Amino acid sequence: MRIAIIGTGAIGAYYGARLQCAGNEVHFLLRSDADHVRRHGLLVESPNGDMHLTDIHVWDDAGAMPPCELVLVALKTTANQLLPQLLRSVVGPGSQVVLLQNGLGVEEDIGPQLGPEVQLHAGLCFICSHKIGPGHIRHHEYGRIALATWRQDGQAAGIGPELHAIASCCQDAGLDIQLLEDLSEARWRKLCWNVPYNGLCVVLNTTTDCLMAHPQSRALVRALMEEVQAGAKACGITIEDSFLDTMCAYTDGMAPYKPSMLLDHHAGRPLESEAIYARPIACAAAAGCALPATQALYRQLCFLDPHCHEE
Amino acid sequence: MRIAIIGTGAIGAYYGARLQCAGNEVHFLLRSDADHVRRHGLLVESPNGDMHLTDIHVWDDAGAMPPCELVLVALKTTANQLLPQLLRSVVGPGSQVVLLQNGLGVEEDIGPQLGPEVQLHAGLCFICSHKIGPGHIRHHEYGRIALATWRQDGQAAGIGPELHAIASCCQDAGLDIQLLEDLSEARWRKLCWNVPYNGLCVVLNTTTDCLMAHPQSRALVRALMEEVQAGAKACGITIEDSFLDTMCAYTDGMAPYKPSMLLDHHAGRPLESEAIYARPIACAAAAGCALPATQALYRQLCFLDPHCHEE
Repeated sequence: MRIAIIGTGAIGAYYGARLQCAGNEVHFLLRSDADHVRRHGLLVESPNGDMHLTDIHVWDDAGAMPPCELVLVALKTTANQLLPQLLRSVVGPGSQVVLLQNGLGVEEDIGPQLGPEVQLHAGLCFICSHKIGPGHIRHHEYGRIALATWRQDGQAAGIGPELHAIASCCQDAGLDIQLLEDLSEARWRKLCWNVPYNGLCVVLNTTTDCLMAHPQSRALVRALMEEVQAGAKACGITIEDSFLDTMCAYTDGMAPYKPSMLLDHHAGRPLESEAIYARPIACAAAAGCALPATQALYRQLCFLDPHCHEE
Repeated sequence: MRIAIIGTGAIGAYYGARLQCAGNEVHFLLRSDADHVRRHGLLVESPNGDMHLTDIHVWDDAGAMPPCELVLVALKTTANQLLPQLLRSVVGPGSQVVLLQNGLGVEEDIGPQLGPEVQLHAGLCFICSHKIGPGHIRHHEYGRIALATWRQDGQAAGIGPELHAIASCCQDAGLDIQLLEDLSEARWRKLCWNVPYNGLCVVLNTTTDCLMAHPQSRALVRALMEEVQAGAKACGITIEDSFLDTMCAYTDGMAPYKPSMLLDHHAGRPLESEAIYARPIACAAAAGCALPATQALYRQLCFLDPHCHEE
């Protein structure tokens, strides 16, 4: 399969490398690291086996990329205003586009611009992976992608043949794939992790293990998860309590982890507060449900993010 | 009048110096700075006139202090477990004790131990004052004390002759005094300032002016004030919206300010989270009112305070 990776960071590089190692033709879009990767290849270290891709399709101009059957978007949502332009040449009729992004409402922004002949999906990544240098990624653990198809009316799209085809391609590369019928539900479930851990690690300048070790921050993590659960419920999506237990247990079992938002903050990059906080808060509010602790955290993040100039 | 200052920090030193300059006999309890002040005196710089007290009663052993008619307690609430012992010799029958402290429930802790012949009052200080070195205080602006008498049953005590006498003594020293009938109401009103500004300045490591300048943190300040207002209402105390407007306007008019909790945090001292956050949250909860953003902030403060080991 001909595959494009739009945004070759910690997430895009890992999945792209796995897909290329399984025999797919993978085209990587990079920005600042393009020359480095052309010269030295892409190095992905992983407990599942290190990969060093030296024979690699590197692009720094999205407009020159060939049309691809499968397009994996692994940009930060803060760059999504660039997406229509970045996808123009790589997406053609029949292309499947998967947004490997967190937050809510990202498909609603880009979907209508892709046209009806392109199918759009969410790919929610449960993975610990970091970029540690130019063209150098370290995958720590996990890696599951939860896939769900987007429908313009916001309803559950079910699991169609295209989604099965994407899953097969990923599974042939050894990836752990989960197929979900309802994209909104999948996104709200992922928010149960992202809302507490991303924001609190930034505001308290800490890692997931420390949040879980202190009884007060642990209680705050849980309270934020319960607000997300209540917001989802207001939007018609049931998340069972045991799922929150699972998210806590999963984090307890993780090695000390710096969520991507903390790395973004340390690097002076804009934070994904809009997709991860503002959108869910607005969706829940439109359904009559306030998320006060989540909103407090969102406002703290806006204060700390010099790129945030919104009211 | 013979007056004791229990805790000669930024607050106690300022008011004690003003009272001594007006002709009262003032006894200052100090800890680490006692020797320095004995040798060099107490220097209080103020826009209302600098004061340098060289003829000064300095004590570092509370048990050796003489009984005083008026006892002003200006310790941090985090040291309140020491109060019964610190007050043992300085308080006698007929003593008036004023807690110049923030938060809720501080009188309930100490009042029953003082016995019925000692009257206990709250003194809520609206003052910008900092300690800048040993025996060296800089008063920046404001200085009002709102006084209210404590009653063991929690009801409004009204304004009795003892409170008038304390007020007269303070007014003779040029202090701005406000007399209030209801201690609980006075404390909840003060919390409208302390809850947002103290905690947010610590968590976001900033000053009051920056909180007010950014639209998102300004909105969070207001949301926290409104939670305090709702908590007060659940406890039977009405705080009008215009009071919150006044608190915001007052802070807008202040020079950039580091609240005491931020100074405590920078100095590695315990934070007054129990009195300023945990007690109001518990009072409101007992009355059926959740304060979710306030509780989130409280939990963040506990995480950041290495002295906090509570569940």
